Amino acid sequence: MAEVWVELGEQRYPIHIGAGLIGQLGRLVQGRLPKAKRALIITDSNVKPRYGAAARAALEQAGIVTNLVMIPAGEGSKTLAQAYSLYPSCVSAGLERSSVIIALGGGVVGDLAGFVAATYLRGIPFVQVPTTLLAQVDSSVGGKTGVDLPEGKNLVGAFHQPAMVVADTKALLTLPQRELSAGMAEVVKHGVIRDPAFLAYLEQNAERIMAQDQQVLERVVEQNCRIKAGVVAEDPHEHGLRAILNFGHTVGHAVEAEMGFGGWLHGECVACGMVAATHISRLGGILQDQQLADRLERLLTRLDLPTRLPPGLDPNRLTKRMLRDKKVEAGQIRWVMPVAAGEVLVTPEVEPEVVQWGLDAMRR
Amino acid sequence: MAEVWVELGEQRYPIHIGAGLIGQLGRLVQGRLPKAKRALIITDSNVKPRYGAAARAALEQAGIVTNLVMIPAGEGSKTLAQAYSLYPSCVSAGLERSSVIIALGGGVVGDLAGFVAATYLRGIPFVQVPTTLLAQVDSSVGGKTGVDLPEGKNLVGAFHQPAMVVADTKALLTLPQRELSAGMAEVVKHGVIRDPAFLAYLEQNAERIMAQDQQVLERVVEQNCRIKAGVVAEDPHEHGLRAILNFGHTVGHAVEAEMGFGGWLHGECVACGMVAATHISRLGGILQDQQLADRLERLLTRLDLPTRLPPGLDPNRLTKRMLRDKKVEAGQIRWVMPVAAGEVLVTPEVEPEVVQWGLDAMRR
Repeated sequence: MAEVWVELGEQRYPIHIGAGLIGQLGRLVQGRLPKAKRALIITDSNVKPRYGAAARAALEQAGIVTNLVMIPAGEGSKTLAQAYSLYPSCVSAGLERSSVIIALGGGVVGDLAGFVAATYLRGIPFVQVPTTLLAQVDSSVGGKTGVDLPEGKNLVGAFHQPAMVVADTKALLTLPQRELSAGMAEVVKHGVIRDPAFLAYLEQNAERIMAQDQQVLERVVEQNCRIKAGVVAEDPHEHGLRAILNFGHTVGHAVEAEMGFGGWLHGECVACGMVAATHISRLGGILQDQQLADRLERLLTRLDLPTRLPPGLDPNRLTKRMLRDKKVEAGQIRWVMPVAAGEVLVTPEVEPEVVQWGLDAMRR
Repeated sequence: MAEVWVELGEQRYPIHIGAGLIGQLGRLVQGRLPKAKRALIITDSNVKPRYGAAARAALEQAGIVTNLVMIPAGEGSKTLAQAYSLYPSCVSAGLERSSVIIALGGGVVGDLAGFVAATYLRGIPFVQVPTTLLAQVDSSVGGKTGVDLPEGKNLVGAFHQPAMVVADTKALLTLPQRELSAGMAEVVKHGVIRDPAFLAYLEQNAERIMAQDQQVLERVVEQNCRIKAGVVAEDPHEHGLRAILNFGHTVGHAVEAEMGFGGWLHGECVACGMVAATHISRLGGILQDQQLADRLERLLTRLDLPTRLPPGLDPNRLTKRMLRDKKVEAGQIRWVMPVAAGEVLVTPEVEPEVVQWGLDAMRR
């Protein structure tokens, strides 16, 4: 059992990490939000059968009147239309400004429920209860909420910090291997951008992670939350440092958008994007640690993650997409380029040909 | 020409008030948001023919690439579906995080465009250019943005402070009398809750206001912005003091919701709501200045505003509606009760019978 605080002044909040924490949800919510007399659990069709009843019972036991609403599982639910459909549930659950929304599920549920919490009554508290590795190590921490538009991912959203994150690591044991791998992409990212010792730990434990060793997974989640919490605390609204969390996401988002829903998982796209960024960094003369590209590719491969572009994907289409990313400023892509393990550089100064070469190196 | 600052620390922003300021919009935006190279003007079908071209030309002259999108005029446009329809315009206008959305119009445009700005790319800057009295004295200041749901007004929204407010008082000269009156309801409200001297000024100048005397109107807008800015600066997120701005709105919102779109204007509902709250305060023994109820009714009547409930409206339905208001806390309505001119009390302790008597006194 571990507790990591995201230090954001008045908005600071704890991340609780441990096995079986969903059963303690009522006690935790009560301790953190004593005014909350009503809760609405937003969950999806995968998670509800596993944890819906337990979460609800835990809240009810603590005297919190609890409703539950379910959305279809999958990225296809992360839309404004889906958010729209949830507001009436907030009304009928009798939610007030002191009530709480519980996001029980993976990244899609967290982003969507967080957006609803950010915008219902101009913002009510919400608690993240991430049940996937990706959500536990990444999306549940940091206060970014949002939904997709047909024009691109996360184009609509808000910064809205959760009141608390409750990461039940037992939930990771029932996770399909592919989702475990996808979550590990963000874990590897955190190591590359900020923590060389942790990157080495991952290299030592890749197989234990894939075997879902509970102790190793807890350590992975905890150390990740520490890294991410540190970055978020320094830059809650993504004005500066936080940009480094975008490592692998420039190409990654473009791949994700080009493949459309039902293509690769987010983490798989990020894995591919990190390799691409590392090649571009190497070809642009920014990468100093020449072993990093190989280390990264080897580690990702052991974690069953892709290190090449999807077959048949035209790099030119990716470049066009990237220019439409919301992190583009004055028409310039802000690249996060690795320099060495634990060190990256954010720069718009990458020649288009270098990007081209880097993407060409990513073809199969 | 006057300048009032809303003091919100890092988010402090100026309100510029004066005749002909739309023509200076480019210069003002450039001075305040030097990084903004692109703008999207959101306006409505009433305002576009009058000020659309002038606003656009002023921005373009300052070197800001400007697009314009128009929505149908009226409260019916303040919906999530309408917001949804605006996001693609943001994409096609090439808006980035440093770009700016210009809300050119009345309260509906301001609330809707503000919500789009609050949620596009998780929040980009926006500038309020209010063209109605209501928007100049009230809705454009304070950072409340939002849209209506079928279940109630403003149920979805966000706090998002504008980068600047530009109130061109010349626009008030073309305002229909009914809208001028409706705007005056919030003006009177500000006097009653915070500023007895200003309330007296309004009593001395009611006819000059209705005759659209430019000098008096400028003074009215300026003093209002000072009052509202003071309240907002003390309580940006409506945790305490700001509740006093809700004077007249508990009953007012319920009347508005019961009548539906196409009924009374917002300001008309607020006028009626202020009289109701004053009666309830009197009957509940909270009102100390016994002349206030009469003074308020007389002033509102001179301003062509209603002081009784709409014919045929059942007070029981209003009571039910009020309990669904988003300012309800733990099932209790937080009433803003006048005590004397310039002084109000926020209290949930009003007996249901007293509310009933107060509403009965409001029947024709």
